[in-house]
Amino acid sequence: MNLLSVSEARERILKHFPPLDSQEVSLENALGRVLFENISTSIDLPSFSNSGMDGFAVRAADISQAAAHLPVELMVVMDIPAGAAPKQVLGAGEAARIMTGAMLPEGADCIIPLENTDRDGQSSALLGRPVKIFHTASIGEYVRTKGQDMIQGQLVLERGRRLEPQDVGLLATLGIVKVKVIRRPRVAILSSGDEIIPPDAPLEPGKIRDSNSYMVSALITQAGGEVLRLGVAHDLLEAIRDLLDQAASYSVDLIITSAGVSVGAFDFVRAAVEENGQLEFWRVNMRPGKPLSFGSYKGIPFVGLPGNPVSAYVGFEVFVRPALGSLSGLSNVEHPVTRVRLGEPIESDGRESYLRASLKHENGQTVAYLASHQGSGNLFSLVLANALLIVPSGVKSLPIGVEIDSWLLGSC
Amino acid sequence: MNLLSVSEARERILKHFPPLDSQEVSLENALGRVLFENISTSIDLPSFSNSGMDGFAVRAADISQAAAHLPVELMVVMDIPAGAAPKQVLGAGEAARIMTGAMLPEGADCIIPLENTDRDGQSSALLGRPVKIFHTASIGEYVRTKGQDMIQGQLVLERGRRLEPQDVGLLATLGIVKVKVIRRPRVAILSSGDEIIPPDAPLEPGKIRDSNSYMVSALITQAGGEVLRLGVAHDLLEAIRDLLDQAASYSVDLIITSAGVSVGAFDFVRAAVEENGQLEFWRVNMRPGKPLSFGSYKGIPFVGLPGNPVSAYVGFEVFVRPALGSLSGLSNVEHPVTRVRLGEPIESDGRESYLRASLKHENGQTVAYLASHQGSGNLFSLVLANALLIVPSGVKSLPIGVEIDSWLLGSC
Repeated sequence: MNLLSVSEARERILKHFPPLDSQEVSLENALGRVLFENISTSIDLPSFSNSGMDGFAVRAADISQAAAHLPVELMVVMDIPAGAAPKQVLGAGEAARIMTGAMLPEGADCIIPLENTDRDGQSSALLGRPVKIFHTASIGEYVRTKGQDMIQGQLVLERGRRLEPQDVGLLATLGIVKVKVIRRPRVAILSSGDEIIPPDAPLEPGKIRDSNSYMVSALITQAGGEVLRLGVAHDLLEAIRDLLDQAASYSVDLIITSAGVSVGAFDFVRAAVEENGQLEFWRVNMRPGKPLSFGSYKGIPFVGLPGNPVSAYVGFEVFVRPALGSLSGLSNVEHPVTRVRLGEPIESDGRESYLRASLKHENGQTVAYLASHQGSGNLFSLVLANALLIVPSGVKSLPIGVEIDSWLLGSC
Repeated sequence: MNLLSVSEARERILKHFPPLDSQEVSLENALGRVLFENISTSIDLPSFSNSGMDGFAVRAADISQAAAHLPVELMVVMDIPAGAAPKQVLGAGEAARIMTGAMLPEGADCIIPLENTDRDGQSSALLGRPVKIFHTASIGEYVRTKGQDMIQGQLVLERGRRLEPQDVGLLATLGIVKVKVIRRPRVAILSSGDEIIPPDAPLEPGKIRDSNSYMVSALITQAGGEVLRLGVAHDLLEAIRDLLDQAASYSVDLIITSAGVSVGAFDFVRAAVEENGQLEFWRVNMRPGKPLSFGSYKGIPFVGLPGNPVSAYVGFEVFVRPALGSLSGLSNVEHPVTRVRLGEPIESDGRESYLRASLKHENGQTVAYLASHQGSGNLFSLVLANALLIVPSGVKSLPIGVEIDSWLLGSC
């Protein structure tokens, strides 16, 4: 059977994950959620021209001759604290004491900072007395003009954006306290394999503990999904069917299985899936992660991750994270790519390969070294790594010093 | 008054944030938490030598002459599925059918993949009949040796590490289902300023909506903290004191205030703090973020963030995120630094500056362009940015093309 390439497999998987429906969340719960709607501003921001300094609002024309040795005197007629709306128009020869952020009075067109006047912090708010201005100012100086940051009607946050803290702040600025976001994907995960035991069971000879469902659950959570943990099934058609049916009864958006490491272990999952659904493919031309399957069970997309933990991790990053991103309506489901320089030569077998690496900063460059033993069962090497190096299909060796694409681990 | 440098201010702040106490969490809730304890493995991993392929376990010496035209026949005496513990020793002239991940029987020292034999998938498990081996193998071939990934007693996860999904998987592999982590920092946040109104209040002339407490709450959550939102106080000593007292009564680990943008607005916070605590400093030589204060209130560390939203954001990233990291016991509280090339010349005023920038990939380089208007009130420019450029103190201009340090936004 011809193996699917990674890009073919990705394409065939991703078309089964259209964006989910929306829900409304309060601003306090919006961080990290994906916007369902475009957000435009209904107001100019700042919504009024205001002072960028504590000082005096004046007319630039009045002080066009001011200098340290020839100060211009203006009458202080208003005191405008932040939050107030000045009620009178500033006339010629007048000055308004003004605080940072306070609204510029009509008539004024620039701000003189306190240090360019004869007033100090204490005396600055005294009304009905002249203030000496020691310096000229141009029109607009130290004024934050209405609409400088955003103008009414401007699109400021796009549908499909994952909300960052500053976005949450922006929504608050716009007076938006509830926002439509895309529902979190619900993902069921089960492990199978006669050699797999739960982590809290005693370790008998020949058995290994179920690490995959814990690791993959954490990956799903990190990707913004909700996890339904179904536990470990023995290599029995009935046991696996029972867990798959549980997943279906919860109407999850995706079912993930992690079968034992042997080829045979997957046969039981395959049989159970094919009873009530279909398998589209079950091998991908990649390393690690070749025994990766995709299909559907009772109409729910199904991904079978390989049993080796590193293969499961890579399979998740290459296929499942983008699928969850697509369900979440993210406008960009691609990993950010970082170019790095090889600190040692690497060998590959011609399959598209994802190698665990440690990135180090050396002389202003980012240099990659392989992280310990690359065997796909060796989870500790993944703990030591901070990047996956991507060796393209068809490449069998790369010399030291060449540049290569990588994905940083731990940056979501 | 001499302004503190950023590094002096950081140093003076960070010594007030020793790691918090620990709590035990289940593995399902461990993602993103900071380890309180060193984790060593109590077992070798793999805990037994096992097969890396579906095939036959044999003695390498028995097949040292095997070739396609001169196969060696061995008697199949065992069938070892994954999860089983073989009960007999493999003798000379014998082969054991073995699955990937299954335990290597005593006596065997290498694995022959199925494709180097005359058996196919169906017939491979037939016992009591000879299998033809078409290829030699060296000792250890396709064997995953006991302890290849980790050896008993090895330190595998260090205290102060923030747990990644693969770390959670590793803990499961080790049979650790509860883990000691450092308690999440509890942070109270309040806004003050007569010009500040809650986001859902009607926008009156001269007023601005409270964006900072929402943005900073999201930043605290992102940094692993728990938020206590105290709301907005007017510029009244009593109102601010009341909220500070609420924070103290909840025994939070840090109090953050975001005062109005004017210098005067902070005076009320200052007075309230000094009644029941002290202010260590209230200005830092940086841009934006100069009006940043630090002290304590009723024995609880206090950070006063500037009122302008971008200043508040930068103040959080420079001082509060490291402080929360320190409370959380993180072994490294520094932001990862990314070197980028300037795509345009930049000006600074000699203060250590944090400029909003968009990073773009051009010809294999990461090039930085300033993101819109750099005014510290302009939150939208922070939404457009994906990095902060760090211009060192004393630098007033940098030409296009030079390399500069940056922090990536949105990578926690």
